[in-house]
Amino acid sequence: MIGNYKFLLALLSCCLLGLSESSTRHQDVSMATHFVSLGGNSITHVESFLPRSRPSADTYRTVRNAFFHYEESRALGYDLELNSRELKANATIMKIKVAEYTEGEVTPHLFKPSQHIFDVLGAISKAELFKYLQHMPKGAVLHAHDTALLSTQAIIELTYRADLWMCQSSSEHLSAIALRFAKKQPEALTEPVACTWSLLTEVRNKVGAAAVDAHLEANLTLYPTKKFEDNNAAWSRFMEIFGLLDGLLMYAPVWADYYHKALEEFLADGVQYLEFRSLLPILYDMDNTVYTPLDTVRIYVETLAKFKAANPDFIGSRMIYAPLRNVKPEGIEDYIKILLQVKQAYPEFVAGFDLVGQEELGRPLSDFIDQLLQIPQDIDFYFHAGETNWFGSSVDENLIDALLLGTKRIGHGFGLVKHPVVLDMVKKLNVAIEVNPVSNQVLQLVSDFRNHPCSHYFADGYPVVISSDDPSFWKASPLTHDYYIAFLGIASQHADLRLLKKLALNSIQYSSLSVDEKYDALNKWQKKWDAFLDYVNDEKGNGAASPSQKLD
Amino acid sequence: MIGNYKFLLALLSCCLLGLSESSTRHQDVSMATHFVSLGGNSITHVESFLPRSRPSADTYRTVRNAFFHYEESRALGYDLELNSRELKANATIMKIKVAEYTEGEVTPHLFKPSQHIFDVLGAISKAELFKYLQHMPKGAVLHAHDTALLSTQAIIELTYRADLWMCQSSSEHLSAIALRFAKKQPEALTEPVACTWSLLTEVRNKVGAAAVDAHLEANLTLYPTKKFEDNNAAWSRFMEIFGLLDGLLMYAPVWADYYHKALEEFLADGVQYLEFRSLLPILYDMDNTVYTPLDTVRIYVETLAKFKAANPDFIGSRMIYAPLRNVKPEGIEDYIKILLQVKQAYPEFVAGFDLVGQEELGRPLSDFIDQLLQIPQDIDFYFHAGETNWFGSSVDENLIDALLLGTKRIGHGFGLVKHPVVLDMVKKLNVAIEVNPVSNQVLQLVSDFRNHPCSHYFADGYPVVISSDDPSFWKASPLTHDYYIAFLGIASQHADLRLLKKLALNSIQYSSLSVDEKYDALNKWQKKWDAFLDYVNDEKGNGAASPSQKLD
Repeated sequence: MIGNYKFLLALLSCCLLGLSESSTRHQDVSMATHFVSLGGNSITHVESFLPRSRPSADTYRTVRNAFFHYEESRALGYDLELNSRELKANATIMKIKVAEYTEGEVTPHLFKPSQHIFDVLGAISKAELFKYLQHMPKGAVLHAHDTALLSTQAIIELTYRADLWMCQSSSEHLSAIALRFAKKQPEALTEPVACTWSLLTEVRNKVGAAAVDAHLEANLTLYPTKKFEDNNAAWSRFMEIFGLLDGLLMYAPVWADYYHKALEEFLADGVQYLEFRSLLPILYDMDNTVYTPLDTVRIYVETLAKFKAANPDFIGSRMIYAPLRNVKPEGIEDYIKILLQVKQAYPEFVAGFDLVGQEELGRPLSDFIDQLLQIPQDIDFYFHAGETNWFGSSVDENLIDALLLGTKRIGHGFGLVKHPVVLDMVKKLNVAIEVNPVSNQVLQLVSDFRNHPCSHYFADGYPVVISSDDPSFWKASPLTHDYYIAFLGIASQHADLRLLKKLALNSIQYSSLSVDEKYDALNKWQKKWDAFLDYVNDEKGNGAASPSQKLD
Repeated sequence: MIGNYKFLLALLSCCLLGLSESSTRHQDVSMATHFVSLGGNSITHVESFLPRSRPSADTYRTVRNAFFHYEESRALGYDLELNSRELKANATIMKIKVAEYTEGEVTPHLFKPSQHIFDVLGAISKAELFKYLQHMPKGAVLHAHDTALLSTQAIIELTYRADLWMCQSSSEHLSAIALRFAKKQPEALTEPVACTWSLLTEVRNKVGAAAVDAHLEANLTLYPTKKFEDNNAAWSRFMEIFGLLDGLLMYAPVWADYYHKALEEFLADGVQYLEFRSLLPILYDMDNTVYTPLDTVRIYVETLAKFKAANPDFIGSRMIYAPLRNVKPEGIEDYIKILLQVKQAYPEFVAGFDLVGQEELGRPLSDFIDQLLQIPQDIDFYFHAGETNWFGSSVDENLIDALLLGTKRIGHGFGLVKHPVVLDMVKKLNVAIEVNPVSNQVLQLVSDFRNHPCSHYFADGYPVVISSDDPSFWKASPLTHDYYIAFLGIASQHADLRLLKKLALNSIQYSSLSVDEKYDALNKWQKKWDAFLDYVNDEKGNGAASPSQKLD
């Protein structure tokens, strides 16, 4: 029967010596099994082909060490070798990480990654580990949506611009439904609920700016609901926030400001490159200018140029055109027209194409195959897929279509563990998985981060990038909260600076940048990385790092 | 860059044609990648080596179909071919399953496997799918603990025997701490809390049998707490139940009765073989007889013989000696003495050795290597391992020691997805994973069953058996609730009767039975299976199956 030690040892040796799996598999079948057949049913069992014996304790420990070493070698980041300065920084960071992990083992209910982010966001921001991660140059954010980037505080500041109106559903109490810039009172709305417009400055004068700001803040995030009835309910609330924001952000001057401020916040959080999804909404202004999707992109491009000029350490930003998936196949044809226009006008800025919106209530990619295959081959796909826990649903199977359509990355890929062949292929084809830990919890896919499927991707060296999706909606920092969760809550206790560095390098490697651009990008990142190592190593022994201390 | 369709197609062809992975992997490295090196950091990217082009829609659909087929072929149970009667039964069962799944997609918060078992236990018991699963012969339960098998109702009945005393911590209200049979009042206890003894019949006379029974019932399960502070708290409550039960069950005559009644309940639930873990407690009676662990086993063996004589369709039962892991290494030496004694006396009945108790508060296997390696090689290991979500902890790493010690099966293996090499090896070595879905939820490892890691094991054809651990403590049926959850909540929507049949066959294949015994076991199972097909196929079109209808 099974359990033969020499057989195990032989198998392990094959693994360690890198012999092909198929040869050992073959051995397994030909030498060690036979079949018992009965009434059409067959059972298999492994038979001893060598005398059984337990090893000596010494042999055991040798094999055990080899096994640990081999398994560790499969993990993401293992291929990196740390230099002496990195090793020193690693020791500092791991001391803090292991302390927090060990404390968690004793009092699991206090372990931050086992709780809801709304309960621990502030505590995470104050954690020593968080402060180091915030200072770390994390490379790129490759999965984020353009109207969910900016901190609530900065959005509130945008509402102080003149001529902003707020549509309220009640005259008795604050009840913001929509915002809009206008020279005179716009017509009352009837949808999504009936509401009438007041100038926001007047509302502020009447009930006090603090009350208005608090009200807006409450309606610009998913707080405080930690447990939506299901993820449909979470998505529905999600869409309400977009609804409230639309009239504010689609005002052309604010559109530019929002992006500029978001880039500032991302850079301050250690993000030097941003590849975001955009619906490319039609903007407006108070002069009745007629805008097109091309203008929306133009404003991005102009704003980015300004930002880059002022911030030479910033690498850049690109857009993935990602309209709503909840359309008929013919709707995709309209999208393709816009895609071709903006790609032609701004080939450098437009990275590719995706479809967004709750996968479960939208349509699967398989509905759009004919249309999607018409998209010119020089435009890349970056599909959302598998942001679900419905195993075997059409949404779940988006993972297969995304892969077969040649997606360059997979947005979320939460359901990937249920698709062994897709898993094999993403590794072989180097298709990155854009993991957004905090988003997955807020949108009810996972409750305890220690069960996030990305543990498997980390453990077996899948091409992962960590991203933040919609940090604005859960008051998270642009990327650091997701890094904290991924590093402490999802990765192994033993995962160290090599994983962190690998994630940063991956975010550049799997971006849409060309090889030459990646070269420059890595140069900019490396400078920050060196400064980060200085920061960590100087601080060592001086207690907690100060979050206010600048890198350069 | 990546996304080349021909390359994908070639890879897929390799997979479909069964060419070795290593050759494609090699190709990948030599033909499709090059390295950009910068300052000690390297990035890799896949380069087109063939002109890129999108396929025609027809080609796409052909590849897509092949892909789905190939991925399906990796799933557990795919190797079984259903005969015409099985196909007919499959159609009936899948219609019901898919209907319940589809309803869940529309109203996820009502989907039973996404909720806590305490909220849906009754609704599951009434579900049409459950009724079919209850009638299905499910083979064996290979992971269950001997004092957590029996329904609460049957345990309450045992408390009606004469001379049973209850120790209460309050004279004001019902407050059962312990139970014990005795001719006269036992001495008051001081631990775990001070309590004094009353005859249970007198208490029943005084406050009413219904009140006493309700009180006992409330203290014999983990209800109603759905959210313990953490899994330490859940385990602590768990141990209290064992404490209350001990004095009742360890009374030698009850010990026999409990086992006999449990076998009855298991057989009625479609379980024909039971391999259970036992601490082998020292029993007692009212004649001050001195018992030893050998007597505990003897009573099992005698009771089993009686049960088998009365139930010729029952296959059998065996015991894994599984004392508490929370001991010093020397404690293991005492365990080994008992193990050798009982194995020598009852070689057929004693299947092997394990250690039990909460892994996280006990000691890891690695503490006991020297002792465990002394156990004779003809005694098999069936280790609990990886019943945790602490990735990289010593408990998590029990998975590696269990494997290297040559365990025949892994108890739980919840953390396996975090150990790619252990995953590889359990498949190659045919080490079964004993998955206990309901137990994992009640003990706070997973909340929504759709995220249970067993989805991955099912999807990629790992050797899984479904078991029930301690069904008594959550009022579940001996095995059917776990099957319902596994089939509807953990497996793919598409997983069908082949998976169910495979799980039943696996439970026999991975038992400790000899090859010849498995042959007989399959014969007994096959008879029930044929009757089950009759039942499902006759019922078809007559609406819901009646749960009271007998199989034979």
